[in-house]
Amino acid sequence: MSRQSNRATDSKKMNSELFTLTYGALVTQLCKDYENDEEVNKQLDKMGYNIGVRLIEDFLARSSVGRCHDFRETADVIAKVAFKMYLGITPSVTNWSPAGDEFSLILESNPLVDFVELPDNHSNLVYSSLLCGVLRGALEMVQMAVDVRFAQDTLRGDNVTEIRMKFIKRIEENLPVGDE
Amino acid sequence: MSRQSNRATDSKKMNSELFTLTYGALVTQLCKDYENDEEVNKQLDKMGYNIGVRLIEDFLARSSVGRCHDFRETADVIAKVAFKMYLGITPSVTNWSPAGDEFSLILESNPLVDFVELPDNHSNLVYSSLLCGVLRGALEMVQMAVDVRFAQDTLRGDNVTEIRMKFIKRIEENLPVGDE
Repeated sequence: MSRQSNRATDSKKMNSELFTLTYGALVTQLCKDYENDEEVNKQLDKMGYNIGVRLIEDFLARSSVGRCHDFRETADVIAKVAFKMYLGITPSVTNWSPAGDEFSLILESNPLVDFVELPDNHSNLVYSSLLCGVLRGALEMVQMAVDVRFAQDTLRGDNVTEIRMKFIKRIEENLPVGDE
Repeated sequence: MSRQSNRATDSKKMNSELFTLTYGALVTQLCKDYENDEEVNKQLDKMGYNIGVRLIEDFLARSSVGRCHDFRETADVIAKVAFKMYLGITPSVTNWSPAGDEFSLILESNPLVDFVELPDNHSNLVYSSLLCGVLRGALEMVQMAVDVRFAQDTLRGDNVTEIRMKFIKRIEENLPVGDE
């Protein structure tokens, strides 16, 4: 975690395709390494978590976003600032639970799945699981325990991609967090 | 390779940090999977090759670049159009061989290595090897066999990152190219 000095001023905007194909190489490698799709999903989520706990620092530095007052504000920041910044898209925030502790991010298009078609023998692969882990890890670093999962996925035939986020609790103690 | 219809008009610009950290997860996974750094370098190069042979199509569609008349023109297109598009940086083109068949791309900063420090036990790891493979694969698809390697690397203590490219031959026949 050195070499951070110039990051805030030194942002590089890139097209998403090289990222998309590199992510594909990562998923392919994990499919070789692990026996079943469930294990691959778990690994992707875990990698995402480790990325999220690092990415949040960069995000806070770049976005100048302050502490969110409620989960609705958090949802808006994730959709309009974070997704825009790191994936170049702005999901819509919908399907709030009556209690206001659950919402969905609807991605009209998901840059991670350009070029991708799931082979029949990977019907249980949640291809973009990394994103769930990133969100979970990043939010944990700002003291929010949140459950994140894919509810719909265009790769599996749905019309849109839907990420469902459920607030679990505010993390009171500031425990040091390392790699999972 | 389906779902390509909207790509040319549907480009997503993103910051490089999520890509950088995801690439780090890929390299870390390969370091777990393979016995030594040389094998990891080889795998990264191979993955890059497979990415390059796909990325070139996207590149030609987006850039409207036509056939290059010589290797100097190719060098300029790679540095000013391709690197700018997919990594958000513009390397300088230098150190031409007298015969004009070899040059260097100098990267003042390499987005792949933000956040990264090589552990001592990976002194032979050429961390960004994927890039060499991407260049090699993409150029092969436009009938150019080119040798690509890192000559300097800031991760290994050099002041800049230098990618050395050597023209080998024009590929005359249009053989179908699959995954390596």
